Amino acid sequence: MEDNNINTEKLQWGKTVWKLFSQVRLQSPLIQCITNFVSMDLMANTLLSAGASPAMVHSIEEIPDFTPRVSALCINVGTLSPSSLPAMITAAKICSQLNIPWVLDPVAVSASSFRFDACVQLVCLKPTVIRGNASEIIALAYSSSSSRSSATKGADSTHDSMDAIEAAKFLAQASGAIVAVSGATDIVTDGKRVVGAHNGVALLQKITATGCSVTALIAAFVAVDKSNALDAAVSALAVFGLAGELGMKMAKGPASLRMHLIDALYGLDEATLQSHVNITSL
Amino acid sequence: MEDNNINTEKLQWGKTVWKLFSQVRLQSPLIQCITNFVSMDLMANTLLSAGASPAMVHSIEEIPDFTPRVSALCINVGTLSPSSLPAMITAAKICSQLNIPWVLDPVAVSASSFRFDACVQLVCLKPTVIRGNASEIIALAYSSSSSRSSATKGADSTHDSMDAIEAAKFLAQASGAIVAVSGATDIVTDGKRVVGAHNGVALLQKITATGCSVTALIAAFVAVDKSNALDAAVSALAVFGLAGELGMKMAKGPASLRMHLIDALYGLDEATLQSHVNITSL
Amino acid sequence: MEDNNINTEKLQWGKTVWKLFSQVRLQSPLIQCITNFVSMDLMANTLLSAGASPAMVHSIEEIPDFTPRVSALCINVGTLSPSSLPAMITAAKICSQLNIPWVLDPVAVSASSFRFDACVQLVCLKPTVIRGNASEIIALAYSSSSSRSSATKGADSTHDSMDAIEAAKFLAQASGAIVAVSGATDIVTDGKRVVGAHNGVALLQKITATGCSVTALIAAFVAVDKSNALDAAVSALAVFGLAGELGMKMAKGPASLRMHLIDALYGLDEATLQSHVNITSL
Repeated sequence: MEDNNINTEKLQWGKTVWKLFSQVRLQSPLIQCITNFVSMDLMANTLLSAGASPAMVHSIEEIPDFTPRVSALCINVGTLSPSSLPAMITAAKICSQLNIPWVLDPVAVSASSFRFDACVQLVCLKPTVIRGNASEIIALAYSSSSSRSSATKGADSTHDSMDAIEAAKFLAQASGAIVAVSGATDIVTDGKRVVGAHNGVALLQKITATGCSVTALIAAFVAVDKSNALDAAVSALAVFGLAGELGMKMAKGPASLRMHLIDALYGLDEATLQSHVNITSL
Repeated sequence: MEDNNINTEKLQWGKTVWKLFSQVRLQSPLIQCITNFVSMDLMANTLLSAGASPAMVHSIEEIPDFTPRVSALCINVGTLSPSSLPAMITAAKICSQLNIPWVLDPVAVSASSFRFDACVQLVCLKPTVIRGNASEIIALAYSSSSSRSSATKGADSTHDSMDAIEAAKFLAQASGAIVAVSGATDIVTDGKRVVGAHNGVALLQKITATGCSVTALIAAFVAVDKSNALDAAVSALAVFGLAGELGMKMAKGPASLRMHLIDALYGLDEATLQSHVNITSL
Repeated sequence: MEDNNINTEKLQWGKTVWKLFSQVRLQSPLIQCITNFVSMDLMANTLLSAGASPAMVHSIEEIPDFTPRVSALCINVGTLSPSSLPAMITAAKICSQLNIPWVLDPVAVSASSFRFDACVQLVCLKPTVIRGNASEIIALAYSSSSSRSSATKGADSTHDSMDAIEAAKFLAQASGAIVAVSGATDIVTDGKRVVGAHNGVALLQKITATGCSVTALIAAFVAVDKSNALDAAVSALAVFGLAGELGMKMAKGPASLRMHLIDALYGLDEATLQSHVNITSL
């Protein structure tokens, strides 16, 4: 019985993921990325290979003209500076006002007070989705508590995603955002439901900007289904993880995995997707 | 007869392209790039694999010392900001004064008024070559007309290159620049002659920065033949497109195409080049 | 006899290099990089594939919080600007005060007076290691002499590394830093001893950011053996060069070499390392 329910659930998710991915390819949503300098290349190529249209427009002078036209926005604080923060805030405000979905990636949120405060400020601007690793989500969730001082300083997580479920639920409830935690199992929650996407391979952590890129992919998926950001976020995580699994079959290390992942994302077909997507309620 | 003329023309172009490419490899021209953050990696690797020497010097403090020594300059507005524009203008003025060729890539010119005005300002500083996609060239050509409001907002073209021939001729006449339009057929014009380079593969559009990179390659080719920028621009477009065709034979998606393209550009020999270059008058 | 001594020396170096590389993998040192926009991607992936944890934190607002926690710092002036220089100086001062090792890469030091003066200023802040190509080290060593005007303007070297031995020794003595010169043979000196690392392939010069990346790798190695920066620098150069040799076996050009190099760095085992590392006293 249990097994049958799980199978039914997985099949249902397979259909949902394929439907959303097909819409990304069909609509080619314009995704604005205000992001760090390390990830721009892989992020743009991830969006292009998935069928979306990336635009790395980050200058505050351009945002009032440009942002109202985009399908979704991705904000990533990886190489935050005092000059980039106002652009992020301006763009986030426009999106929130115009009901354009936007996604926040609080990379290495504990790196500095400046970065931490910036992330808290951005969370208050009502992101549709927040995606981070376990250390980032835990740090952001308990921003007012004493646990902050023990947080990781770099971009790599020292926590497992399953350890972050309560933090993710808390952050989702407090912010109103869907919260996604990347890890061996990717966790997505709206504060009540918790869904796990089990696709992916560990070696992805040895490639810079894979986290940033999946956040951008979430933006592309949310762009085509605003009304159900949880499904969109789970779907994007599953698709990226599955592309990693497919790429891993041909990879001989992190650099070839990066290449094969993008090729796999571009070529991913319905049968492969539906038979491999592995999403369950938690 | 017609066929013979076309064959003679293609053979002639094959020799011209090879002569210029050989000069790039021999002279290793120093190419300054003031460009966007997304494309720096692929652009530098394109120049290196073609035999040129890239220099991503973009700070206005360095330009008076550095720019007078370069063989050519490439300006790309992809991630334009108020702080990068004065550097672009200063470098362009130095090049125009010292008769150093320079090339303009008006990426996503319609993204904002700020960007549009910057591009118009740069066009007035007499670029040797302007290269864009059809949407960008159409928007730039008719900057004073009412058609601007219908222009594409992102970096991806919504027009075919053949639709942009009249716009390209108009822009070439108005600016004095050679104008190149990338597309299924790459179009190059001095305002009178129109030449088409038919090499290339559609999948290049799914790789970020390929347009930026071919603009940099045009700069390298113009550097070794200042007196004939039309031939140089056509040749660079054909070489890059041909490298894409050769790469495509081994590619399984956009990321492997990107890799094989650069490898093919590095290894391109005379016989392959001359037998595959496909350039015709239009 | 001579041959036996050389063999004994090579075997000894093989053990040293493996010991340090194992420590990098085991400790996963957090390496802050304040670096140019071209190299961030390859530099981060080099550090990740070697087992280190990269952090491209470059904003002066974050440095007082972040830099005291890092294992080592890498400063690279490739796309220097007036806004990035104060961050470099602040971070370098913190490292020097806290005895955190830091490494300087004076990319294209002769490109401008602004850059030259910045590099001289950074050298005065006591880097643990300075790594450059021959032209860069020669220019930096003789900064007060008349030879400066003949220096190369771009990032590519016009000198052979062996020509730079005296300059490197002079710079090491004057600065107190270990000085490393990349080339066909990589030279490392503390001002007295001179060691040569003979691993590597010429095609690496056709890939952008390989020099920047090996400097970051030096930072990772110095992080795990502060007390012997010469050994650490030599070891990092040998490991990167060897990864290039192993990658070259499968490469068909510069782009595939780049991929295979990173894969090889990730997979490098003790037997392969110890049998291939080629380091000698000079």
